[in-house]
Amino acid sequence: MAEAIANPPVVERLAIIGLGLIGSSIARVARERGLARTVVAGDGSDAVRQRVSELGFADVVAPDLVSAVKDADLVILCVPVGAMGAVAAEIGPHLKPGSIVSDVGSVKGSVVAAVQPHLAAGVHFVPAHPVAGTEHSGPDAGFSELFINRWCILTPPEGQALEAVATVQAFWAGAGSNVEIMTPQHHDLVLAITSHVPHLIAYNIVGTAADLEEVTQSEVIKFSAGGFRDFTRIAASDPTMWRDIFLHNKEAVLEMLGRFNEDLAALQRMIRWGDGDGLFELFTRTRAIRRGIIQVGQETASPDFGRRGPAGDKPAQ
Amino acid sequence: MAEAIANPPVVERLAIIGLGLIGSSIARVARERGLARTVVAGDGSDAVRQRVSELGFADVVAPDLVSAVKDADLVILCVPVGAMGAVAAEIGPHLKPGSIVSDVGSVKGSVVAAVQPHLAAGVHFVPAHPVAGTEHSGPDAGFSELFINRWCILTPPEGQALEAVATVQAFWAGAGSNVEIMTPQHHDLVLAITSHVPHLIAYNIVGTAADLEEVTQSEVIKFSAGGFRDFTRIAASDPTMWRDIFLHNKEAVLEMLGRFNEDLAALQRMIRWGDGDGLFELFTRTRAIRRGIIQVGQETASPDFGRRGPAGDKPAQ
Repeated sequence: MAEAIANPPVVERLAIIGLGLIGSSIARVARERGLARTVVAGDGSDAVRQRVSELGFADVVAPDLVSAVKDADLVILCVPVGAMGAVAAEIGPHLKPGSIVSDVGSVKGSVVAAVQPHLAAGVHFVPAHPVAGTEHSGPDAGFSELFINRWCILTPPEGQALEAVATVQAFWAGAGSNVEIMTPQHHDLVLAITSHVPHLIAYNIVGTAADLEEVTQSEVIKFSAGGFRDFTRIAASDPTMWRDIFLHNKEAVLEMLGRFNEDLAALQRMIRWGDGDGLFELFTRTRAIRRGIIQVGQETASPDFGRRGPAGDKPAQ
Repeated sequence: MAEAIANPPVVERLAIIGLGLIGSSIARVARERGLARTVVAGDGSDAVRQRVSELGFADVVAPDLVSAVKDADLVILCVPVGAMGAVAAEIGPHLKPGSIVSDVGSVKGSVVAAVQPHLAAGVHFVPAHPVAGTEHSGPDAGFSELFINRWCILTPPEGQALEAVATVQAFWAGAGSNVEIMTPQHHDLVLAITSHVPHLIAYNIVGTAADLEEVTQSEVIKFSAGGFRDFTRIAASDPTMWRDIFLHNKEAVLEMLGRFNEDLAALQRMIRWGDGDGLFELFTRTRAIRRGIIQVGQETASPDFGRRGPAGDKPAQ
């Protein structure tokens, strides 16, 4: 894992607010690759601060958020989207002039609206979204390789100083990510279809299955290898984070969901009327997208990601 | 891989009709574990027969289906659900009295209806569905470990001789599977929710994403790690097989899809009206199902099935 260690570090003092899966992964990679000279951890929860001290991946565990951001050159907010505004309000007056505030929120439009008003004119703001994660949560769940070969999307406000953008870009490149820049609005549309609506329908079908009378929950669990199982993994992600995402990316999610519903109604009609050609055409077309994903290296072609073999298992028909 | 080799074999002469992913996996495991003394391959496609000869996992590659089933003690139909009736009509008159016919179809009610009329009174019929597979197709895609620790569901007609059921059960146990017996109707309901509807909505969202104007296809591919990617794998499964499944399990699929749609409408309404508590409640409840699946050994708890690390990747928010 010892890849290009930044020398000198990208920033001197890095403050991470919120040490969950993402925040603790950032701390670990910053430490491991020397992206910051000092890594400061700030978290509102006593239990999390305690655990971060035990795990030892931060140089400083600050007693409160205000002292966490004191003298920091880069502050990354890693709290749920719905908590960004309150955190920004708390730390805003204590940020060092010339420092950079960034975040990792999965929604960008509402985060920009919630955070920006609390930042003084001399503080730079470079919102970011590392498109990476697992279904696990908390400071124990993080790991330093989480961002390798993943995309990190930056959505700097128009007119943001280029050096601040370049610093955040260098930080994420140093963590192993590819960086892309777009507007908050476009980000929210792209993520609605590539992430938010997929999660919503995964949560939904797991809920539907849980509520059946004709098929028991233990049968659903037993025969889940037929495809359902993959949805349950997605539907095991952090509830607070996902509640906030849907509440804060409402418009784009409802727009994409409307299209999904239209298309599903058409599919349902094909099944009812026995339109085999229509089904076959769609099922063939969707294979092309899969090939594209494998080609750009965002997935391997191996069936079932190494589940193969006695201890693991397989998806199925 | 050298586990308990059956000695004596479960059947003397096994004929497999259709050497795709499942059929070729059955041939491989039967050979590897000595489940049959002689493995005969029958396939309507010249190209497949040719390839099976090259791969060498069958003792005999028959020139046509009628000679494939001659003298066979167990005939397993591994063709798409929509082709079962025609194959049964072709081989029916040539089956040995006392032999057993089975299949691997993902739908059972319609397969029973299509196959049964073509079998003479002295031929046993024990329909089966190994709940296992990958998104790959064809004789090269099969492997002998495919069925290990997976469920195989048998749906014998009422009054079917117990020995015939016991033989098929022993065969699948020998392949490494756990065997469960239920009615065809119940099977079709269980699979509709655990497999068929999940595949349908995966196909659907991949289709929706492919048709967007605001978000390009290359963006969808690039940022697919956010959750969408997992759906594309499911939506890359064999189009013919899945067309047939939806056409032949129409009633159960439409019933489960109706429930899915009702629940999704409720979720959509929660998002529109900002009902964070309702979202949180559902997102918490769905985690329990995931825990159940991990507990019964149908999945590992490791995030993302070993995609972790530089070459692989992760799901994300």
